[in-house]
Amino acid sequence: MNLVPAHGGRSAASGASSSLPDIDGHRLLTRIRELARIGADSRGGVTRPGFSAADRQGIAYVTEQARQAGLVATVDQAGNLVVRQPDSAPGRRQALLMGSHLDTVIHGGALDGAYGVLAALEVLQSLGDHGARMRYEPVVIAFANEEGALFPCPFWGSLAVTGELQYTPDELLDRSGGSLREPLRAVGGDPDAVTAAQWATGSIGAYLELHIEQGPVLERGGDQIGVVEGITCRTVITVAVHGEAGHAGTVPMDLRADALAAASRVVLAAEDVARRGLCTVATVGRFQVDPDVTNVIPGVVRLTVDLRDLSETRLQEAERAFADELAKVGARTGTRIEASVTDRYPGSIADRGLRAAIGDAADDLGLSRTDLPSGAGHDAQIIASVAPVGMLFVPSRGGSSHVPEESTGDDDLVAGARVLLRTAVRVGELDQAF
Amino acid sequence: MNLVPAHGGRSAASGASSSLPDIDGHRLLTRIRELARIGADSRGGVTRPGFSAADRQGIAYVTEQARQAGLVATVDQAGNLVVRQPDSAPGRRQALLMGSHLDTVIHGGALDGAYGVLAALEVLQSLGDHGARMRYEPVVIAFANEEGALFPCPFWGSLAVTGELQYTPDELLDRSGGSLREPLRAVGGDPDAVTAAQWATGSIGAYLELHIEQGPVLERGGDQIGVVEGITCRTVITVAVHGEAGHAGTVPMDLRADALAAASRVVLAAEDVARRGLCTVATVGRFQVDPDVTNVIPGVVRLTVDLRDLSETRLQEAERAFADELAKVGARTGTRIEASVTDRYPGSIADRGLRAAIGDAADDLGLSRTDLPSGAGHDAQIIASVAPVGMLFVPSRGGSSHVPEESTGDDDLVAGARVLLRTAVRVGELDQAF
Repeated sequence: MNLVPAHGGRSAASGASSSLPDIDGHRLLTRIRELARIGADSRGGVTRPGFSAADRQGIAYVTEQARQAGLVATVDQAGNLVVRQPDSAPGRRQALLMGSHLDTVIHGGALDGAYGVLAALEVLQSLGDHGARMRYEPVVIAFANEEGALFPCPFWGSLAVTGELQYTPDELLDRSGGSLREPLRAVGGDPDAVTAAQWATGSIGAYLELHIEQGPVLERGGDQIGVVEGITCRTVITVAVHGEAGHAGTVPMDLRADALAAASRVVLAAEDVARRGLCTVATVGRFQVDPDVTNVIPGVVRLTVDLRDLSETRLQEAERAFADELAKVGARTGTRIEASVTDRYPGSIADRGLRAAIGDAADDLGLSRTDLPSGAGHDAQIIASVAPVGMLFVPSRGGSSHVPEESTGDDDLVAGARVLLRTAVRVGELDQAF
Repeated sequence: MNLVPAHGGRSAASGASSSLPDIDGHRLLTRIRELARIGADSRGGVTRPGFSAADRQGIAYVTEQARQAGLVATVDQAGNLVVRQPDSAPGRRQALLMGSHLDTVIHGGALDGAYGVLAALEVLQSLGDHGARMRYEPVVIAFANEEGALFPCPFWGSLAVTGELQYTPDELLDRSGGSLREPLRAVGGDPDAVTAAQWATGSIGAYLELHIEQGPVLERGGDQIGVVEGITCRTVITVAVHGEAGHAGTVPMDLRADALAAASRVVLAAEDVARRGLCTVATVGRFQVDPDVTNVIPGVVRLTVDLRDLSETRLQEAERAFADELAKVGARTGTRIEASVTDRYPGSIADRGLRAAIGDAADDLGLSRTDLPSGAGHDAQIIASVAPVGMLFVPSRGGSSHVPEESTGDDDLVAGARVLLRTAVRVGELDQAF
């Protein structure tokens, strides 16, 4: 275990005032390890889905850590955990909200979400008196049910904060048909007053979220901090390629309409759209062949294409280019190709001022950094509809996420929290609002 | 329904002697329709798997038709139905064996196998006294369990005739674990004397099999008769493409090892091997993606490649060319590709003299014809190890086979039987043995 000294590692080049607070790296790493034991599963990972018993224990753990630090933790009507300084007078100042989520996917890792919450808690605790002098009131939030692993409404908590929830607790059901009513009450929420969890217009001055990257860019590039440009827009296109099934031995090549041979060209066309730079990434994730028998020419292939880009305009252009390629493949292979957009998720652009603050904070600490988009979704994209948001990443070993192997070096975890703190101070001391 | 007059349709250009026998087309078509009712299933098809109750009823139907025609039908020890003329003295002359099989796949059609048996019965019945004057004794055979739909030993009956069975009736089990012993006994076989079904060396002078094409070549080419060049050799290669699974949003295109993008190139490489003429056909039939989730880059794809060609030498060259392409795809895509030959089926070449006799018979009758390979397997390929074999095809509507839609025009069905009869006469009157 590579522990960083509690107050060590500050860059000599930082030029920071000695009156600035710093975080306790040892305390942060200890909390990360202790929280990872809650919901620890048989695969060496963490299974702490939103509104499960393990999730309740996770919330109780963070609540107790906050209490011991002299902070005040409450659960709002929607199940979000909110932590404030003891002298807080909510509403007097705009909030500088910081956090992420405590829930995980099934057989997930120890860091996705949890790291961002515990780092924010560490920042709030470290700010001490300094926080009281800031333009914004620093507030920690652990959004409920970001993953939606049990109750299929990901971003439940952040949607409640922005007033965009599409379901009531009675309408949101898990796979066995149970509603969210009782699980929400058990965690300390109020199923009959969920809308009261919405924050008043303008009450959030800014939102900062620290997260593991969930991709390989920082690790491969040798960078310690990723300054997130925004969360990409995402379009999912569902494609069905209809060919003609037939006997693998008796139908000559020139009389075939092989759905798999055509679908293979569709896969390469999707890849090409991204490689030509029309969008950031393109992925065919689902791909099912019918009848899937060794000696039968495939008759139908169904597949999904996932296109992502920061720019909605570029993404739409990529969709059009892909549609053109589908038409060409159909004509060339004698197959009938149906395609429709089955999901379209808006992205969000990180606030320019917050991006600069994160970059400057990293520079202050002498940490290498790079700008990158977030291809994964985060609560920040929800909050972006009501407040400026900033996100920063630390490296993920092997780019892993949502798996037990998810991990980040201790130095990187501490460095990320230190940048979050420095960013909060910078933002809190700025004169202008975002 | 397009019924052909019992003795009509003979070409004026045939130049055939008026003393030659002819078949009764109406009787043939009636028997085909009556047999199709045995095992008729809910999908409009026929489900008469080998050694099922429906199969027993099918054998009983043909036995009764033979009896009414004055012929002698017996079931051998392995369950094959053998029909001879009443004055037959088995062993005195070599046999001119004609037939196919009565069993079907699950939800199959009315013609695959059944047509060849009923046409052969019609030929034997039509030959009458003429058969007694032939060099070979005409004999009809319905091989047991050609499809292997219940008991997984396709070609059971023909393998028993050639002495190549790999299982005893006690060893051959259906999916529920029941052995072939009682079903074989129920059909009239002898589970303790299956090896006695083997025919003595040299006792089969030639084997003729008439079958629906099961492919689209004759229909598309407008030909009435297909003279089969041989049954293709077949190699099945099982391929596993190992890439790196990852988040569809967070892994940049140039850092991916996408198993599906690589496997799509494998599909196109297989297609290309056939399109370049290295073998007759190449088919990727099974294709399974893991984890098969919309927002996850595929980590592993498993697929099968089915390569066929009449020439074993050419097929081996095609296998080598495909292996070279696999290595290129792996290097280009950063994936690890494992491939192994999991099945290799020898083919068989049709006897040159029998092919000529079939072609001449079609010409006699003024029927258009073409040569073609059989990409599907048939009992003929088994019998080819002990006797010269000849096969002829009639068109399949839409190239369909092994499905309820399997059909052939009445004219074509009658024409095929007529060519079989004319071929049998030609072969029986030839002086030389094959």
